[in-house]
Amino acid sequence: MAVGRVLKRILLGQQMRSDKLHETLLPKRIALPIFASDALSSVAYAPDEIFLTLGLAGGTFALTHSWQIALGVIFVMAVVVASYRQNVHAYPSGGGDYEVATVNIGPKAGLTVASALLVDYVLTVAVSISSGIQNAATALTFVRGHEATWAVILVVLLTAMNLRGVRESGNAFAIPTYAFMVGVIGMGLYGGYRHFTGSLPLAASAQYDLVPEPGYEALGSLAMAFLLLRAFSSGCAALTGVEAISNGVPAFQKPKSRNAATTLLLMGCIAIGMLFSMISLARLTGIKYAEDPAEQLLKDGVPVGASYVQDTIMGQVANAVFDHFHLGVVYISVVTGIILILAANTAFNGFPVLGSILARDGYLPRQLHARGDRLAFSNGIIILAGVAAVLILIFDADVTKLIQLYIVGVFVSFTTSQIGMIRHWNRHLRLASDPRQRAHMQRSRVINFVGAVMSGTVLLVVLATKFIHGAGYAIAAMAVLFLMMMAIRRHYDAVSKELDIVSQSDQMLPSRVHALVLVSRLHRPTLRAVAYARASRPHTLEAITVNVDPAETRALQEEWEARGIPVPLKALDSPYREIVNPIVDYVKGIRRESPREIVVVYIPEYVVGHWYEQILHNQSALRLRARLHFTPGVLVASVPWQLRSSEGQEARMEADVSSAPGSVRMGQ
Amino acid sequence: MAVGRVLKRILLGQQMRSDKLHETLLPKRIALPIFASDALSSVAYAPDEIFLTLGLAGGTFALTHSWQIALGVIFVMAVVVASYRQNVHAYPSGGGDYEVATVNIGPKAGLTVASALLVDYVLTVAVSISSGIQNAATALTFVRGHEATWAVILVVLLTAMNLRGVRESGNAFAIPTYAFMVGVIGMGLYGGYRHFTGSLPLAASAQYDLVPEPGYEALGSLAMAFLLLRAFSSGCAALTGVEAISNGVPAFQKPKSRNAATTLLLMGCIAIGMLFSMISLARLTGIKYAEDPAEQLLKDGVPVGASYVQDTIMGQVANAVFDHFHLGVVYISVVTGIILILAANTAFNGFPVLGSILARDGYLPRQLHARGDRLAFSNGIIILAGVAAVLILIFDADVTKLIQLYIVGVFVSFTTSQIGMIRHWNRHLRLASDPRQRAHMQRSRVINFVGAVMSGTVLLVVLATKFIHGAGYAIAAMAVLFLMMMAIRRHYDAVSKELDIVSQSDQMLPSRVHALVLVSRLHRPTLRAVAYARASRPHTLEAITVNVDPAETRALQEEWEARGIPVPLKALDSPYREIVNPIVDYVKGIRRESPREIVVVYIPEYVVGHWYEQILHNQSALRLRARLHFTPGVLVASVPWQLRSSEGQEARMEADVSSAPGSVRMGQ
Repeated sequence: MAVGRVLKRILLGQQMRSDKLHETLLPKRIALPIFASDALSSVAYAPDEIFLTLGLAGGTFALTHSWQIALGVIFVMAVVVASYRQNVHAYPSGGGDYEVATVNIGPKAGLTVASALLVDYVLTVAVSISSGIQNAATALTFVRGHEATWAVILVVLLTAMNLRGVRESGNAFAIPTYAFMVGVIGMGLYGGYRHFTGSLPLAASAQYDLVPEPGYEALGSLAMAFLLLRAFSSGCAALTGVEAISNGVPAFQKPKSRNAATTLLLMGCIAIGMLFSMISLARLTGIKYAEDPAEQLLKDGVPVGASYVQDTIMGQVANAVFDHFHLGVVYISVVTGIILILAANTAFNGFPVLGSILARDGYLPRQLHARGDRLAFSNGIIILAGVAAVLILIFDADVTKLIQLYIVGVFVSFTTSQIGMIRHWNRHLRLASDPRQRAHMQRSRVINFVGAVMSGTVLLVVLATKFIHGAGYAIAAMAVLFLMMMAIRRHYDAVSKELDIVSQSDQMLPSRVHALVLVSRLHRPTLRAVAYARASRPHTLEAITVNVDPAETRALQEEWEARGIPVPLKALDSPYREIVNPIVDYVKGIRRESPREIVVVYIPEYVVGHWYEQILHNQSALRLRARLHFTPGVLVASVPWQLRSSEGQEARMEADVSSAPGSVRMGQ
Repeated sequence: MAVGRVLKRILLGQQMRSDKLHETLLPKRIALPIFASDALSSVAYAPDEIFLTLGLAGGTFALTHSWQIALGVIFVMAVVVASYRQNVHAYPSGGGDYEVATVNIGPKAGLTVASALLVDYVLTVAVSISSGIQNAATALTFVRGHEATWAVILVVLLTAMNLRGVRESGNAFAIPTYAFMVGVIGMGLYGGYRHFTGSLPLAASAQYDLVPEPGYEALGSLAMAFLLLRAFSSGCAALTGVEAISNGVPAFQKPKSRNAATTLLLMGCIAIGMLFSMISLARLTGIKYAEDPAEQLLKDGVPVGASYVQDTIMGQVANAVFDHFHLGVVYISVVTGIILILAANTAFNGFPVLGSILARDGYLPRQLHARGDRLAFSNGIIILAGVAAVLILIFDADVTKLIQLYIVGVFVSFTTSQIGMIRHWNRHLRLASDPRQRAHMQRSRVINFVGAVMSGTVLLVVLATKFIHGAGYAIAAMAVLFLMMMAIRRHYDAVSKELDIVSQSDQMLPSRVHALVLVSRLHRPTLRAVAYARASRPHTLEAITVNVDPAETRALQEEWEARGIPVPLKALDSPYREIVNPIVDYVKGIRRESPREIVVVYIPEYVVGHWYEQILHNQSALRLRARLHFTPGVLVASVPWQLRSSEGQEARMEADVSSAPGSVRMGQ
């Protein structure tokens, strides 16, 4: 079966109740903040990474060269946005890069993209939250020195929120994103106005001298080029999240692809505008930003020392532009913190969507496919958050260190996807004959080709400049995920092959049914089990009990007779006072004697309302069932008895699909 | 039903395969080391606690008063041993103090004893392991400063060993205990010989001056008496574990009671001998032992400071007695370490025995009663070890601090048990007429009376002197356990009442059986489920599948028809692509329409060999069963399909009763 066809069927074949269709699909004004928060929020840390990397060379190197880097990043961003507009039109199903790679290159390419995206989801959480905490520290000084702890607390809160279920749509998610855009663009405009009127002050850090890090004092031209490339690849962190819209086309109102493409373009323009503003203002206010400020920043020739607190570039710019308007600084700090948290939240919503697709293709546990299943996704979300928290702790919530791991995954998926798109157009061009259509396709192919070359180049630059700084770990994690998902798929394939119908012998009816009712005491659940067993009219019906205590067994037998229960009660001996083995042995004995007979074991089970009651009941039944399952020809029938405490507890187990993470993105 | 009669029936009513009887019962020479390691090992820390507490007053107070304390402790020990010899004869069933208290005073007294014993098991592990590490540090210097870490590692190892199952009997357990007895008694004799020949050197710490702790400089006679009482109650730590034999009478060879009583007497004599030797040698070698050696020990008027390492009294005595024979020091250190680990191990073996009895009486989860059930005990053992490890970490493996919590539980159970014994004799004396028998009973009653007064007094002393030092925590823990066990019992009673047969309506047969076979794909497990369902001849039989993906459902329906399966296949719609809700709704619909019909849902289940395969299979089946159980009149029948990976895995689930913790003590 062609994977592409299956995929399309899956991804397009979503049934929705038509009366709910209108309210769940997203207009562009809501889709933009939901899908763009990840991409836009990176303006909060990408400029910092550019300045900090260039700052390794000391002096005014960062101020003089940052515009080159900025132009490079902006150019790549433009190319990537243009490329993804092609994806959105060609693959509107929401399968995103995974689908493009799988259909056009092959399953392994798709799985490579999926591994990269899974790693990225974890890093999106770790980087965004760490950056959010770093930004918050500008205003909330008590956070300082405890960044990792606060970051982990935030991750836990976000996890709890998503486990409970929070719909992404609505004002709660849209307003902060718009507030952030207004803030950053407003700051850019006001800063520009002050610059041209000559009233823009220098930043506080402009007064310091920036000395090179040891080893970077006198760079040759090759080393300098390498440093520029490293800064460029750090700056490319601004591109993370650009692909989000291509995974969410089904969530848009019609015409879906066009609306998605428009939103993508809008997002690209805003992101470029914000990045340009930030880099410009940072240069105009003369910010000195260092990886190791205590040693690298000098005041009157003396290092500022460990007591110096280096605010983020966003914070320093805000402090300069709004030097007479403190509320502006606070506003920027608050909206930046919030958008970074929203960016982290996108990972919690993107993961279930990808997980569902991967599960459908047999690469993840199958229950992740059924979207209504909250429990399975809860486990996924907990793993996602857990790994992110561990990363935060290992890297001490240091954005600069975490970002080294981040960018490689994004560009693996960009590059694979764009190569896939080229092959997509090649294939379609072989079939298309209409010249206008062909011209359109050829134009798209050129765009995707440029995209592939561009993102491939960036990927090589990232690998070359960052491998030893952390990108290697990300590659290793991707490899582990890749192998794990391959192993799962192989397991499912092997099981599927094992279960294929080879003969009609499986349809053969067993000749007789031998039913056993398990009795521990004579109470209502036991009577119910006996009645149900009798109702199913087996050929043989016995009640059995395990003789752990002879006196009790005797009492049970007497009561059984006294009540005139029309089923014989047999007591199994248990020399070592245990329950499971004697029953299993007895059942196996029946099977041995008449192999064409099936044995149905009726076990009364208590249905309880709370987990702690579960500890007090059914434990022997559970273990017995697990053991009996190993013997072919044995059925275990649970006869539930609903204890009073179970009343009203079923509702807690029902899945509320509408507020499950990721439901908005899938257009549910 | 009289609790006593039930208890006796339970505890005596053990069936054993007669061919195994001989090899499992213990001769006295094996029983002594198994049951005595806890009691004997306390000589490794009890003298330290006496010296250290007396040392608070500074000077030679410890040297001059320790003999009074030692005599007091030895006297109490003799009384307690004599008392328990009565218990062993009167209650040979292995129910121990819990049984004596329950039968003679009442269930709440029994539960009080049980709570105290449970707390003690935890503390036996924490104290013995901590003391073992402290002793080991004398020889293994790398342990120093990391005592808590090493102690936790030892607890983990011991737990792993017990989870795998290690029989307590045999040489591996007997030899170290005898080696310890030989070592300590040998050291006592050789030390005594050297003393009388005038060649016994002073201990290294004899050279220091011991200054009082702040607040203890000039004690009034009342304060001094209080300090003596505190030292006495610390010294009573030597009595922990004396009761062990009374819980293990069934494990002895016949005549059980007489052999147990003889072993108890033997143990008492050895314990008294060892304690006497240790205290004497500590005094003769002039050991200075302080709670805070860095400040309290002076050399030439200057505190020795934090770098001073204070060896245990066992270590200091060994260094003095064997000053020209270093191998002797190493021998003492090694056997002391090993016996303390064995002492900790007794808790792992004592807990399952008590847990089984408490579970039988409904105070702990019922599955703890069936002794063959390793899994349930595993959970108990993990909890026991976990709490002990937490205590070790909280108290930093400090024996002095842990011991404050330890003694109160022991004496709660001693006192309650001895009061119970007095009432036992009172009751029997009312019935007995034979004068010789009466005389014997009266003598026993006097012994138990002295025992009750003695242990009650010690309990009051312990409470008065140690409550604020930690005994309060132990009392609080006992109260929590008491309330928890009461709550469990109340829950079982309530459920039992709810399930009592009130009418014959439960025996009423359902009129019809409506069977459903769940189908996800058409493979061998599905065919088997259909065949089994057909074999049970229900009145109505349908196959149902959930329509998550219309195309797949159509393909399934076509294959179903093509194969000519003689059961109609119905597809349930699932607007939100989930599996559980549509099925539950359908089943509820059937029940609503015909309430006298029962619904049997056949679910094919994969039987896998490894836990990680379980993650990949059956998850929807599991959740479906949990949901369906809430609807009365619905049976869930699992139709297992044994995957190839499950072959040979059943053996791993079988319980090996003979090596389960506690089996030796129960005479199994």
